[in-house]
Amino acid sequence: MKYPLHLQKLIETLKCLPGVGSKSAERFAFELLDWRHDQLHEFSNLIKHIPEELPACQECGCLVDNRNCLFCNASRQQTGLMCVIASAKDAYAIESTREYKGLYHVLGTLLSPLEGKGPDQLTIGRLQERIQNLSIQELIIALDSTLEGDATALYIKKVVDNSSIKVSRLAFGIPMGSSFDYVDGGTLARALSGRGNF
Amino acid sequence: MKYPLHLQKLIETLKCLPGVGSKSAERFAFELLDWRHDQLHEFSNLIKHIPEELPACQECGCLVDNRNCLFCNASRQQTGLMCVIASAKDAYAIESTREYKGLYHVLGTLLSPLEGKGPDQLTIGRLQERIQNLSIQELIIALDSTLEGDATALYIKKVVDNSSIKVSRLAFGIPMGSSFDYVDGGTLARALSGRGNF
Repeated sequence: MKYPLHLQKLIETLKCLPGVGSKSAERFAFELLDWRHDQLHEFSNLIKHIPEELPACQECGCLVDNRNCLFCNASRQQTGLMCVIASAKDAYAIESTREYKGLYHVLGTLLSPLEGKGPDQLTIGRLQERIQNLSIQELIIALDSTLEGDATALYIKKVVDNSSIKVSRLAFGIPMGSSFDYVDGGTLARALSGRGNF
Repeated sequence: MKYPLHLQKLIETLKCLPGVGSKSAERFAFELLDWRHDQLHEFSNLIKHIPEELPACQECGCLVDNRNCLFCNASRQQTGLMCVIASAKDAYAIESTREYKGLYHVLGTLLSPLEGKGPDQLTIGRLQERIQNLSIQELIIALDSTLEGDATALYIKKVVDNSSIKVSRLAFGIPMGSSFDYVDGGTLARALSGRGNF
């Protein structure tokens, strides 16, 4: 027996969330059936108003809070640092370290030819403009340590290479607090080649 | 740095879904930021219209499809069988076996004193009425094999015990296709005590 049509549609939509398969989507949908009317109404409104309430900053691509981009201001500009990130989410992770006080630039996606994501989908043109206009000294590439992240990092390095700017990338190595036994060979190789004085 | 207020609210709401913690809720929320306006609008509407589009059958508590309860009809009534389930979802699981053609009765929840769920939250009164009105011969208890499921099953057995109806419960034993090595002691003990002729 099939689920009612509305439930089928709801499950299909929930399956579009990352890491959610059929079973989880069904659990979510049946859980929603038990929510009170006002809870459903609030959830529905939160989703509907995402585009108006959570716009991206026209300048850096980070999330605008209360019509005001917290990541674009004069003190950050003075550092001459710009950090290239894939998604607006990454800025919060970097902010939580309290180690970085510079600007951000959100690419929007990583290069991934298999998913049809080419260089024209990245905000490279605006990155080049901003590097010029804001007289950036160092570009820090903070992208995933995956095939897509590596490809994108190399592409950005190539694009900005003719300018006099320094390009750096986050260090690779053993994660803090992890036991040697559980570090994979690739990470260990990068940790060895990137070893520093102690 | 904190997320914008709208995003915080969205994350808090997503965390109410079963098995979704902070990290998953954040991933879901940032994924939703990338959805197109029409996708968000459709998702929002699907959630908002749950109460109208997916009502429960007044009789059995299962989901009504197109103003018509597929689980309440004369041919099912003739079997004299009624299956007690915790949630409307369970009816679909039982239907998928194609082994059962009787009626259902959705309890809505299981007894769980710790979560403040007592006998008055179960639809026991209506269950007793239906057993009388529909002249049910056998009541099949199809509840979880957990503390709450066991307590609820015992409670139902006690409540309907004075009537002349047969009360049965789903068999416990080794799951189909599972290796002996991975069956826990409790399951094995139930499988032994419930052994049948071969």
